[in-house]
Amino acid sequence: MKRELSVNSSDTAYCAELIAVGTELLLGRIVNTDAQDVSRALSELGINSYYQTVVGDNAERLTQAVEIAKARADIIITIGGLGPTIDDITKQTLAAAFGKRMVFNESVGQKIRDFFAKRLNNVAMTDNNFRQAEFPEGAVIFNNEVGTAPGCAFEKDGKHVIMLPGPPRECRAMLRSGVVPYLMKLSCSELHSHNIHVFGLGESAVEAKLRDLMEKLDNPTLAPYAQDGEVLLRLTAKAASKDEADKLMEPVLRTVCDTLGDIVYGVDTGSLENTVAGLLGSRGMTLASAESCTGGLVAKRLTDIPGASKFFKGGVVAYDTHSKAELLGVGGSLLREKGVISREVALAMADGARIRFGADIGVSVTGLAGPGGDTADLEIGAVFAALTTKEQSFCRSLRLFHDRDRIRISAASNVLDMVRRFLTGLEI
Amino acid sequence: MKRELSVNSSDTAYCAELIAVGTELLLGRIVNTDAQDVSRALSELGINSYYQTVVGDNAERLTQAVEIAKARADIIITIGGLGPTIDDITKQTLAAAFGKRMVFNESVGQKIRDFFAKRLNNVAMTDNNFRQAEFPEGAVIFNNEVGTAPGCAFEKDGKHVIMLPGPPRECRAMLRSGVVPYLMKLSCSELHSHNIHVFGLGESAVEAKLRDLMEKLDNPTLAPYAQDGEVLLRLTAKAASKDEADKLMEPVLRTVCDTLGDIVYGVDTGSLENTVAGLLGSRGMTLASAESCTGGLVAKRLTDIPGASKFFKGGVVAYDTHSKAELLGVGGSLLREKGVISREVALAMADGARIRFGADIGVSVTGLAGPGGDTADLEIGAVFAALTTKEQSFCRSLRLFHDRDRIRISAASNVLDMVRRFLTGLEI
Repeated sequence: MKRELSVNSSDTAYCAELIAVGTELLLGRIVNTDAQDVSRALSELGINSYYQTVVGDNAERLTQAVEIAKARADIIITIGGLGPTIDDITKQTLAAAFGKRMVFNESVGQKIRDFFAKRLNNVAMTDNNFRQAEFPEGAVIFNNEVGTAPGCAFEKDGKHVIMLPGPPRECRAMLRSGVVPYLMKLSCSELHSHNIHVFGLGESAVEAKLRDLMEKLDNPTLAPYAQDGEVLLRLTAKAASKDEADKLMEPVLRTVCDTLGDIVYGVDTGSLENTVAGLLGSRGMTLASAESCTGGLVAKRLTDIPGASKFFKGGVVAYDTHSKAELLGVGGSLLREKGVISREVALAMADGARIRFGADIGVSVTGLAGPGGDTADLEIGAVFAALTTKEQSFCRSLRLFHDRDRIRISAASNVLDMVRRFLTGLEI
Repeated sequence: MKRELSVNSSDTAYCAELIAVGTELLLGRIVNTDAQDVSRALSELGINSYYQTVVGDNAERLTQAVEIAKARADIIITIGGLGPTIDDITKQTLAAAFGKRMVFNESVGQKIRDFFAKRLNNVAMTDNNFRQAEFPEGAVIFNNEVGTAPGCAFEKDGKHVIMLPGPPRECRAMLRSGVVPYLMKLSCSELHSHNIHVFGLGESAVEAKLRDLMEKLDNPTLAPYAQDGEVLLRLTAKAASKDEADKLMEPVLRTVCDTLGDIVYGVDTGSLENTVAGLLGSRGMTLASAESCTGGLVAKRLTDIPGASKFFKGGVVAYDTHSKAELLGVGGSLLREKGVISREVALAMADGARIRFGADIGVSVTGLAGPGGDTADLEIGAVFAALTTKEQSFCRSLRLFHDRDRIRISAASNVLDMVRRFLTGLEI
């Protein structure tokens, strides 16, 4: 009883239900990020999902959840409970719920033997370990590239059952390598997407600009995700081939970029620091930083990038006035006259970092992240961010919001955005 | 039909079911951290929870989920859907499911009027805004301290229904201020807990040391949470008063601290950087940092603390050899002979930072966070962390694991732990 997966007409679309299995979730020891990962994938595939359930490692209650899901979904996706211990009951319970017997898979069994022999120096294996090699009869097996517990899928009575492991890295990897292709095969189509990265407008403002477009779209789909003061727009097309998907996405991508303009800092480029790293690298330029209120966050984010030493010379966290003068050469009279949090000091700090580290570009942040420290002249969230080269200098005067954390993240992102705009010839 | 909440005998304990309401969860746009927060609170209260459900903003499906929950739980806790828009249907749906009519609450209505008048400069209010002032008849209302949508609770047919707002900050605040006290009143008892902070052993090793104790305990309970290379142990007692709770917890707290020894860095002190900040503050001492592979993370974590300028003089992110020599005064011959990643250079960097910033203590990190950069002598994860004062110097040679992120976090934590151990007279 196969049906074509359909994105456009909801009356014939598949409907999936997630069941996460794990007492740790019920106790609040871990957060259910797997549910988010799987939900996103389903949403991009155009598969509806109306319910998610979490149950503990308990066969009776899992069976009850499966019976409920059977009545209201075509695809049941379980997460967790695939390990070797006595608590891991998902495969057995699902097999029983669908009247299937468990079968030992020799090739998976051999892999487990090899794993123990090589990696664990022949640590004694128990029969339990071989539970990971048993699957419901006729199941498709998904290899686990980053762990030991394989996943699987089977079809019975017109229902598809898919089982993923619980550890987030394993779940995510198997989702990409095994489950999404499995679901796409059901619909004889492929899934391709673009990530459009935006800095400079909030999620709701971005959504407002794109709402009409988003509502009109069926394939590709366009969904915004807010992340640490930035917005990620995910454009996803389902098609028979990559070429066809590209053809579907290309005009929408262009419309989105035209609508948003130069606040789109990249397409498929990763984070703002990644974009900045790429730009500095391709221009053979180097950067140094001087930070006050961000306390090293700009440097930390730039050095998140492997190989950062090619473009990042270093930074100074000048947290007191003495170090601004001593390590960055900011003049004492300037500090006294203009105040530590001022345009002039920000520019002098950027110059100081640039010159001391011998970099092409110097950047700086000075501001009040709070809490506390309010003065008559300055409110919490008042931040100056500067960029200088030998020839030019720029400064943004910012008024940032919310708490200390968000003020610091946003201040650092502003500095990175200034570098990005400088290197691409945009107004800063 | 009131029953005493009971921690020790599961046959008479209340059983709660969570229902999170929000299409955004089903689409994977957000992760369900609220479920974790509420689950933790329930677990600490000794209230069992066997199922969690997520449904979209859809009255019919929410009603179905409520009917299922009614049949298997005593307490139904909904999260989300309390806002003013037409999508927000939780209160109306739950009221209908329990045969209650909605009643306008004048005092909440007045608060909404005041809010609009003051904060939004008399922006036109619509009738929709007053939906937030309607509640199921006879409901207890929970004030929302960090947002506009109040929560509420009612009892009907022996079931307790509790409704929390969806935004995580609001949910967490109301949980603490309104819902936990409400649940405790049901059981005529209070809940008190201690957070025991551990650095230096993994979660499973900590659990192994405490397993016997944890299994024996009923009240108080002891639960471990892994967090960024550290372990948080939460000890929670339920009792008629704080004094009684303290009496229950005191011997267990002592046993845990005795068992784990000096890897317990604090009880109720917050993070490692918080502990270090407190120690530096109470001793009137100052710190400066020199970082290579952690790229500013040590400085960033220390300056996460409000008022960090009192104890943190500043830091240098010396990402290339030139800046190690220039800004930190590390000798060129030392760099050549010993290599940038060496005990000697780590010590010289710490000295450099200490002297340049005029601090009492200098700390440093130099190492290989990868990926890439493997040499014959050094593997990825090889890190030296140093601490020096005018009189003394210490260096840890570390071999850290996993990916770049985790190596950097762990390296920074090691530096902070060294400062903690130095200031409390422990072996480093």
